[in-house]
Amino acid sequence: MNVISKPKTSDITTGPLPASRKIYVDGTLHPNVRVPMREISLHETAKEPPVVVYDTSGPYTDPAETIDIEAGLKRLREPWIKARGDVEEYEGRTVKLEDNNATGEHLVPEFPALRKPMRGINGAAVSQVKYARDGIITPEMEFIAIRENMNRAHDPAAAKAVIDQGESFGAEIPEIVTPEFVRDEVARGRAIIPANINHPELEPQIIGRNFLVKINANIGNSAVTSSVAEEVDKMVWATRWGADNVMDLSTGKNIHNIREWIIRNSPVPIGTVPIYQALEKVDRAEDLTWEIYRDTIVEQCEQGVDYFTIHAGVRLKYIHLTAERITGIVSRGGSIMAQWCLAHHKENFLYDNFEELCDIMAAYDVSYSLGDGLRPGCTADANDQAQFLELDTQGELNKLAWEKNVQVMNEGPGHVPMHKIKANMEKQLDVCGEAPFYTLGPLVTDIAPGYDHITSGIGAAMIGWFGTAMLCYVTPKEHLGLPDREDVKTGVVTYKIAAHAADLAKGHPGAQARDDALSRARFEFRWEDQFNLGLDAETAKDFHDRTLPKDAHKTAHFCSMCGPKFCAMEITNQVREYAANGMAEMSEKFEAEGGKLYDESFVGGSGETEGDGKTEAAE
Amino acid sequence: MNVISKPKTSDITTGPLPASRKIYVDGTLHPNVRVPMREISLHETAKEPPVVVYDTSGPYTDPAETIDIEAGLKRLREPWIKARGDVEEYEGRTVKLEDNNATGEHLVPEFPALRKPMRGINGAAVSQVKYARDGIITPEMEFIAIRENMNRAHDPAAAKAVIDQGESFGAEIPEIVTPEFVRDEVARGRAIIPANINHPELEPQIIGRNFLVKINANIGNSAVTSSVAEEVDKMVWATRWGADNVMDLSTGKNIHNIREWIIRNSPVPIGTVPIYQALEKVDRAEDLTWEIYRDTIVEQCEQGVDYFTIHAGVRLKYIHLTAERITGIVSRGGSIMAQWCLAHHKENFLYDNFEELCDIMAAYDVSYSLGDGLRPGCTADANDQAQFLELDTQGELNKLAWEKNVQVMNEGPGHVPMHKIKANMEKQLDVCGEAPFYTLGPLVTDIAPGYDHITSGIGAAMIGWFGTAMLCYVTPKEHLGLPDREDVKTGVVTYKIAAHAADLAKGHPGAQARDDALSRARFEFRWEDQFNLGLDAETAKDFHDRTLPKDAHKTAHFCSMCGPKFCAMEITNQVREYAANGMAEMSEKFEAEGGKLYDESFVGGSGETEGDGKTEAAE
Repeated sequence: MNVISKPKTSDITTGPLPASRKIYVDGTLHPNVRVPMREISLHETAKEPPVVVYDTSGPYTDPAETIDIEAGLKRLREPWIKARGDVEEYEGRTVKLEDNNATGEHLVPEFPALRKPMRGINGAAVSQVKYARDGIITPEMEFIAIRENMNRAHDPAAAKAVIDQGESFGAEIPEIVTPEFVRDEVARGRAIIPANINHPELEPQIIGRNFLVKINANIGNSAVTSSVAEEVDKMVWATRWGADNVMDLSTGKNIHNIREWIIRNSPVPIGTVPIYQALEKVDRAEDLTWEIYRDTIVEQCEQGVDYFTIHAGVRLKYIHLTAERITGIVSRGGSIMAQWCLAHHKENFLYDNFEELCDIMAAYDVSYSLGDGLRPGCTADANDQAQFLELDTQGELNKLAWEKNVQVMNEGPGHVPMHKIKANMEKQLDVCGEAPFYTLGPLVTDIAPGYDHITSGIGAAMIGWFGTAMLCYVTPKEHLGLPDREDVKTGVVTYKIAAHAADLAKGHPGAQARDDALSRARFEFRWEDQFNLGLDAETAKDFHDRTLPKDAHKTAHFCSMCGPKFCAMEITNQVREYAANGMAEMSEKFEAEGGKLYDESFVGGSGETEGDGKTEAAE
Repeated sequence: MNVISKPKTSDITTGPLPASRKIYVDGTLHPNVRVPMREISLHETAKEPPVVVYDTSGPYTDPAETIDIEAGLKRLREPWIKARGDVEEYEGRTVKLEDNNATGEHLVPEFPALRKPMRGINGAAVSQVKYARDGIITPEMEFIAIRENMNRAHDPAAAKAVIDQGESFGAEIPEIVTPEFVRDEVARGRAIIPANINHPELEPQIIGRNFLVKINANIGNSAVTSSVAEEVDKMVWATRWGADNVMDLSTGKNIHNIREWIIRNSPVPIGTVPIYQALEKVDRAEDLTWEIYRDTIVEQCEQGVDYFTIHAGVRLKYIHLTAERITGIVSRGGSIMAQWCLAHHKENFLYDNFEELCDIMAAYDVSYSLGDGLRPGCTADANDQAQFLELDTQGELNKLAWEKNVQVMNEGPGHVPMHKIKANMEKQLDVCGEAPFYTLGPLVTDIAPGYDHITSGIGAAMIGWFGTAMLCYVTPKEHLGLPDREDVKTGVVTYKIAAHAADLAKGHPGAQARDDALSRARFEFRWEDQFNLGLDAETAKDFHDRTLPKDAHKTAHFCSMCGPKFCAMEITNQVREYAANGMAEMSEKFEAEGGKLYDESFVGGSGETEGDGKTEAAE
């Protein structure tokens, strides 16, 4: 292993995205609520205002902010947390050798600006769901309400029309998101706000089926390769392209210190799978104990992890049901627990100690992401008994979490062919009380290693439409290797597509605006606007320039497909002129020539008329 | 423009795919029916036979074949065509200056081995649909029946089980494809066999919703860039990765000669949009005439084009309905016809001369691909009146084509958000008499230029599942530039994913075998098998080697995610041992300890039991 140096601020990707600037929208209920958004400016010939989009990139894309990763981000939630008067600072757990498993020159340096952790006074619950049930609108909730609306005008009739024509499969998407709506959704467990009180740097975000669909990116070093600077930048890089939150799946050495660097610099919620670190503290899975695990949980609660994947649903009695599968158990956490259960002939210690887990997590407001340790690892194993029994147990555990005022979401598969996807969503809604569903893909076929961002992007778009609240990305390296920077970007952009496609199909009233602005830019040959409104302006511009590199072509009224002689889109301008100016006159002329230009029954039609169409076909 | 040189055989990509060899399955009804397939060999440790897959790559991947692109491929269908006794050779049309619009050193050389064209004697129909209706099983039909089965064993019960558990939305997928089934599907117009008698080199292929979903790749030079060698190789390259057929969308110079080189060397059906070439023969769209178009049709029929995109449904009275759209008319062919109609105040000459068109095409067995000239160019314009009225007209024209013994399929959109996709398929089935649907994507969002293979791959998988018979690929360069070799490959692989995902979801009994073989390879750490069974073995291997480059790692029982210390998949082997050997004993031991290891009600369960699951949740 190489000698490790401190990550430098200069290693981190900063600066605005093309044609974009950060704007802030102030709250009205709470002081200091200041919600960042990204405003994309358009060409001067555009007959419309700039486009405002949801912004996950944090201060890194705001040139007015000073970035210093040794100091970490501003602790914007700290005054909100302290003002609630229900937390205390305390000494916290002492870092142990096994937390990092590295010494001397192999040890990643400690984050330089460590602070004491906070927790609920006397271990009381300080969770957003607790406050919501108490009728309180927290600053986090107001922040989220403003953020979800993306600065769109409140036009109830227009919003209702969009919602009505979408197909949301029972989701109840509001015309506009109010702080009260956020509170009520959190109170009933249909949405979560992952926000550990020890991660005050984060910009609050909500995960629930009645909000914009979110996506997650996974980062983390492994036993095979590792670099702390790389991992911090991967987090920043992932959020730059739109990752709503990030899971740190590090294994191997230096897990504790790398995580500290990541959390202190993360504007988005950070999730982990604590069993990964617990396993690093022992030799073999069977050596794990509840005490080691609990200590690891406290360690991570104090650092500020916002949600934990916990495979408490892998019950002893389900394990043998995977024996006849093609790919058995493929979840790393699930198989660790399975190995433990079989070695000891005992029930999963996470299941047995679930209430104590709840009590710990409630005192920091860490959310559950109940793992699906028995998820299918290939399409042939999808929707089997092992998978669905674990989901039932997730539903049972959801109720316990709620009783303990802990926020909870449920993880889902995996590898599922298209015709079996909907059953997953329906069953989760049914047995898990509408808690947010958080799925990995699913991959709709197994035959494309190297392209599993696509095999899974298909399934992700569909299950997002059906009601999944957050989609866990898959990169092109899935099944093959560790994702690099380019893979992270490809995975994030693919999943932004899936999430946005789901929002459109559900009839989210804020979703279509960006599509339409881009389509107008495309139609009006505002090439730069088309690039800039896209999810990846740099790639779009690069692709265009490879065929038509000259700057003049960016304003040219043609593209490389049709060439300068003829342009499909130009013709529509003529159609519009005809339609606007000459229709009546032309119609007369045509009739005088023995034809009939326009069938009057269609003029002024509303745009969608399957009935009229059928009449026409009978001609 | 550069001086043009002849394409050389050495420019073309040849040789087998990794671990693959060409096998041939002989027909029984007809001599000379010899159906190529690709057999993928597995590692010696695999406990299963090699995997046979559908092979679109023609002789280029068979080292036993001599490739000489100046001679063209073997004319394998010529004896079949001549044996029917209903065709005549004739002098054919003389090539005109405007066919290529180039002279001297700018002229692409003629294909060196030109032959006289054939047509039906006295212009009679010589189409596969004519033969099918006459009760004849042609060699093409037998070839297709064998090809579609991919050498799988005929196990009616197993096949029926797969079909029953799929969701095919009314498709009638057979347990095994017989020549009679092929004939009957063609006879009733539910499938087509694009196979011009002047393209005897092609390996017959069927397009219909009760067969494997097919994909198309577009190639073609444009007014902006061009190279004949590049275009011929792009065709070969596209079929190497799985394109079932190819459209030559060339514009600009040398269209005639480039097409001849492509067809003579193409093992797959070639489609064109004849209005593109017709437009090159005049100055402006309004100068087009029926006579120029008809002459172009004959020119292409004689060369061997297998299907024509014809925008006969863009009727004058529909055009103004596009005026209020965000992106008006985006189909190049559709807008050419719209411009012509408006300029002359006359009905579309393709609509008015449709019967004569049928008579010409029937004499060569060229199939219609009725264009969707008014397809939506953005999600906001999807499913509007203009689009659906044109589809009604397509349905009307289908009937005329069938009366004239011409095979026909219908083109569909385009840009459609997920919740509006199904309506497209349902309406096409309804008004077009179950003729094959051939859709472009659809793209499910507009916000990702540079990634439209993915935005459209999502829609393609879904509409393929719903019943679309062929998916027209979209490359990452869509909307931005002309696809290069890498883009063609990315587009083809993405669409193979979509088509295969659709086959799986429909319950195609031959589809799952490849997934399962790959999943077993993955589970058993047969890395090379996992790569080779994938759609792109080279990329998969490359991605793996970037993280774990050593050859030893190809047989290692771990991957880069978990590392050598711990492996999720290894644990399943332990589970299997426990389940097989120790279950009863362990259960007793556990009960003695006060627990209950296995709930007997689940032992021996069938794998899918939502009901049992619910009982469990109530614990």
